[in-house]
Amino acid sequence: MTREAGPREEAPRSGSAAACAGPIDLRTWSAERLERVEQALSDWVVADAPAGLGEVMRYAVLDGGKRLRPLLVLAAAEAVRGNGEAALRAACAVELIHAYSLVHDDMPCMDNDSLRRGKPTVHVKYGEAQALLAGDALQALAFELLAPERESVPAPVQAALCRLLARSAGHAGMAGGQAIDLASIGRALTEPQLREMHRRKTGALLQACVMMGAACGAPDAKAQAALADYGAALGLAFQVVDDILDVTADSATLGKTAGKDAAQEKPTYVSVLGLERSAAFAQELLARALAALAATGLRDTRALHALAMMLVNRDN
Amino acid sequence: MTREAGPREEAPRSGSAAACAGPIDLRTWSAERLERVEQALSDWVVADAPAGLGEVMRYAVLDGGKRLRPLLVLAAAEAVRGNGEAALRAACAVELIHAYSLVHDDMPCMDNDSLRRGKPTVHVKYGEAQALLAGDALQALAFELLAPERESVPAPVQAALCRLLARSAGHAGMAGGQAIDLASIGRALTEPQLREMHRRKTGALLQACVMMGAACGAPDAKAQAALADYGAALGLAFQVVDDILDVTADSATLGKTAGKDAAQEKPTYVSVLGLERSAAFAQELLARALAALAATGLRDTRALHALAMMLVNRDN
Repeated sequence: MTREAGPREEAPRSGSAAACAGPIDLRTWSAERLERVEQALSDWVVADAPAGLGEVMRYAVLDGGKRLRPLLVLAAAEAVRGNGEAALRAACAVELIHAYSLVHDDMPCMDNDSLRRGKPTVHVKYGEAQALLAGDALQALAFELLAPERESVPAPVQAALCRLLARSAGHAGMAGGQAIDLASIGRALTEPQLREMHRRKTGALLQACVMMGAACGAPDAKAQAALADYGAALGLAFQVVDDILDVTADSATLGKTAGKDAAQEKPTYVSVLGLERSAAFAQELLARALAALAATGLRDTRALHALAMMLVNRDN
Repeated sequence: MTREAGPREEAPRSGSAAACAGPIDLRTWSAERLERVEQALSDWVVADAPAGLGEVMRYAVLDGGKRLRPLLVLAAAEAVRGNGEAALRAACAVELIHAYSLVHDDMPCMDNDSLRRGKPTVHVKYGEAQALLAGDALQALAFELLAPERESVPAPVQAALCRLLARSAGHAGMAGGQAIDLASIGRALTEPQLREMHRRKTGALLQACVMMGAACGAPDAKAQAALADYGAALGLAFQVVDDILDVTADSATLGKTAGKDAAQEKPTYVSVLGLERSAAFAQELLARALAALAATGLRDTRALHALAMMLVNRDN
């Protein structure tokens, strides 16, 4: 998002969301968690899968992604004082689902993209068959991580995590949204249709991050509902910002091909609402997310608060 | 398998495997279970997924497949007197994984097959993008089925089912085997290499059927180990027979393109061992499976016994 696009330093702040001491330094908070996530991903995405498959899987995952989703999971888990091992597994599982979806979406029969995070996409580097297989294996591995043999993650938590991830990744979530996306190329969508597409395509998995983090603990029903609202608002805001960045940022900053949506005649928030109203809508959604956070009644939601601010005000 | 290929009516029978009354009539036993499985699949693979995705998913699943895997799950669950709802969910979940793997394997970048069970393959009928997405959504749905919100399936059973399915579908199982398969085209494999490929590619999921059925109950360690042996032997036997049928059967009987492996220069049991030794090996594996069944100490393994006989002695 460019400086012109919206008042990014003026997003509303919720008082109670920072109830536990002052605001946190997101950079410091993230750095410590990212180290754990990267290490865990490197440990769990094994190189010794047969016939080079492990190498392809690692290429798809260990690529300097921003890890927004794992951070969301961990922030939510910390807010509910959840089981740490469960949270780390959930964080990595969500990232594997995200990574597999990128691999498959980049394939020639889908978005046919050759650049991702500044590197050749998986099918460009390893061929389509390996890309297809690696994506499939990454999805399976995500669920494998959530259901370890060890009892350090209680079975009800394992089951809840599998349920949340499966729903958000499948036809009711990400895969369904991608189907709408494919069908909508070259068509004009209304704002509600666009919202429905994004609610599934990217929103469902982002909301699942928050709910999976929450499932690592035992928040009451009120907190759970408020966290769901937070996740829904944030998920949509994320996509609106993505649509804005596709227009305003360059490929180098994005690490992927900019202007792609317009070139492919994909309906976006910018094409439906225009740049200015899109930016205002993103800020409105941010405000909604932070209000929901305040309504959780949880003691320390500072990381969730800071992540929402960062996700909406990012420039790549 | 042709009449010439092996002594198919003379496979060894285990006495104790039929300890509970006489042998069952597999046709009658199967018919009742298949009705439940077909109904459950039709209920669970929803048509209302967005943008036609549901239709594609249903086309891929509700296609008159033999449902060998669901029957194996149900037979194993009955042998351990397991939770009925868990068993039905596991049976359908395994079939969804199988169905997704066929959709992806048939795609142009993999086996490029246009005929499956006598009908156009999914990508031929709906296009590659929809085939890719439908496969992805089917994998997610499999795990969704295993982790229902309702407590009629205890959380430890849900978690165990997710664990078994994820491992058998991923890099250590099916996807890994497929990677070996791809890498082996045009290469000569030794029998141990071929066995390793098949152990992962088809064996792992077939063994998982048995173990998932078992996980619906609470067999003791001895029974569990013996069931794992049964599943491993059966899984390999299934593939050996598949390789034989690829040579001996015609496309109409198979419902898929016969002679495909040879045309693609894929190493098979027939290419490595020859037809006669392959047939003998299949019978040896059947004997091993039935011996393992006898060693379970379970009271009624008649359905598992009959299924093993049928799987090895089938002609399509």
